Amino acid sequence: MVGVWKGRFFRLEEHLKRFERAWKALKMSPSIDLPSIRQVLFECVRRSGLREAYVEMIVTRGVPQAGSRDPRTYDNCFYAYAIPYVWIQSIEKQKKGGHLIIARDTIRIPESSVDPTVKNFHWADLTRGLLEAYDRGGEYVVLPNQKGCLTEGPGFNVFTVYRNELWTPPSGVLEGITRKTVIELARNEGISTRVEDLSIELARSSDEIFATSTAGGVMPMTVLDGISIGKGLPGRLTQLLHKRYWEAHEDDRFSSKVDYN
Amino acid sequence: MVGVWKGRFFRLEEHLKRFERAWKALKMSPSIDLPSIRQVLFECVRRSGLREAYVEMIVTRGVPQAGSRDPRTYDNCFYAYAIPYVWIQSIEKQKKGGHLIIARDTIRIPESSVDPTVKNFHWADLTRGLLEAYDRGGEYVVLPNQKGCLTEGPGFNVFTVYRNELWTPPSGVLEGITRKTVIELARNEGISTRVEDLSIELARSSDEIFATSTAGGVMPMTVLDGISIGKGLPGRLTQLLHKRYWEAHEDDRFSSKVDYN
Repeated sequence: MVGVWKGRFFRLEEHLKRFERAWKALKMSPSIDLPSIRQVLFECVRRSGLREAYVEMIVTRGVPQAGSRDPRTYDNCFYAYAIPYVWIQSIEKQKKGGHLIIARDTIRIPESSVDPTVKNFHWADLTRGLLEAYDRGGEYVVLPNQKGCLTEGPGFNVFTVYRNELWTPPSGVLEGITRKTVIELARNEGISTRVEDLSIELARSSDEIFATSTAGGVMPMTVLDGISIGKGLPGRLTQLLHKRYWEAHEDDRFSSKVDYN
Repeated sequence: MVGVWKGRFFRLEEHLKRFERAWKALKMSPSIDLPSIRQVLFECVRRSGLREAYVEMIVTRGVPQAGSRDPRTYDNCFYAYAIPYVWIQSIEKQKKGGHLIIARDTIRIPESSVDPTVKNFHWADLTRGLLEAYDRGGEYVVLPNQKGCLTEGPGFNVFTVYRNELWTPPSGVLEGITRKTVIELARNEGISTRVEDLSIELARSSDEIFATSTAGGVMPMTVLDGISIGKGLPGRLTQLLHKRYWEAHEDDRFSSKVDYN
């Protein structure tokens, strides 16, 4: 999905490029090209009239012939829609921060089984983790991998701040556009940024934690497995990156205006 | 799904029991009880008039409220249908046997991520494996696990015959009703049966290989990764178990008659 904020698509070209790469990786081919998809997305938003929108684009494998299980023979389908902007974490909640749980009972599906850089809603592991998080009194979940390092949550990437450096996992996760934006903004601010394996131990010792998603932006996490992170409030770097992230939405370099007429 | 053969459900009570266990494991609860589901399935078959049917029963998580991603709040749904019997391997093809590929590029999603004993169509790994199998000239795929042992294919379990013993993996796979039936029938015939880790090496040295599924029964595989297995024809034990499997469909202990009037 891609976000529209104040009537402008945010980093649409990057979303489209990732989308095309994803359907090719799955050996699918919708009967529509990228420029036409771009047009459809603008038209969805224009017709909805929404100034703040969650715009979804999906390619499905399609429906098999009766009895056939050969995915090469299906007619792949494309669909798209615009709905009001979705917040994984509400604006109100962002002031306080969320309660993040590191799953104990579920590891993230490994890359050797399913490629997480190909965005998908194949979420049985993430849903199982989320149910565990609710059972344990949390609100959000991040799944570790087999090495005991953090990967990602349902629909978001994870960052921590440890000794004034920003950390986020390098692989086994979606290459989120918000994640990429935050890395660029941090480097722009002169914040040392390490895209490296992020162990559970390092996360527990961190001063700040936040999640990133197109559906919510930069989302502070202030409690980890029942224990306050730092002072239990959104940290300094989290707040700075939150501010810069939303500022970027009005920057012509990153956003494309919708013509509603 | 459950099969109907010559107007009789095969091992319906076991399918229903597994179905209930599965939705509970996923913390779902359809607003219908097991005896009513049983009735719906009989009614689907009766109305279709089909004597040989593929009868599907599904519980879905359901549709979220706009913006919510809390799976606990969804209304879970139940649906069922009967369609003509589906053959993963046609009767004609069963005389010759299929070409099975052991995936090189994809491992089965581990149990620590998603429980394979909870039947599901969360098949991104299996579909990726199947596409690899087609690329390599095969027709069917089985995915290994991280230890280099066989797991299962898309919708089927795998057996091999090695030195007159029957082998099938003990875990990391669906506990298929056809798998269970074949194990029982084999033990009944005095065939030594080992439900143990089945390494790729052992599979390559095997004299016979077959797959099992409600959608096709006992399905001989006579070529493995381009190389003939044994004499390149369905083996002796495979044929014996194939015969006994279909005989069991007319046995009152295993099957329940549909009243079509």
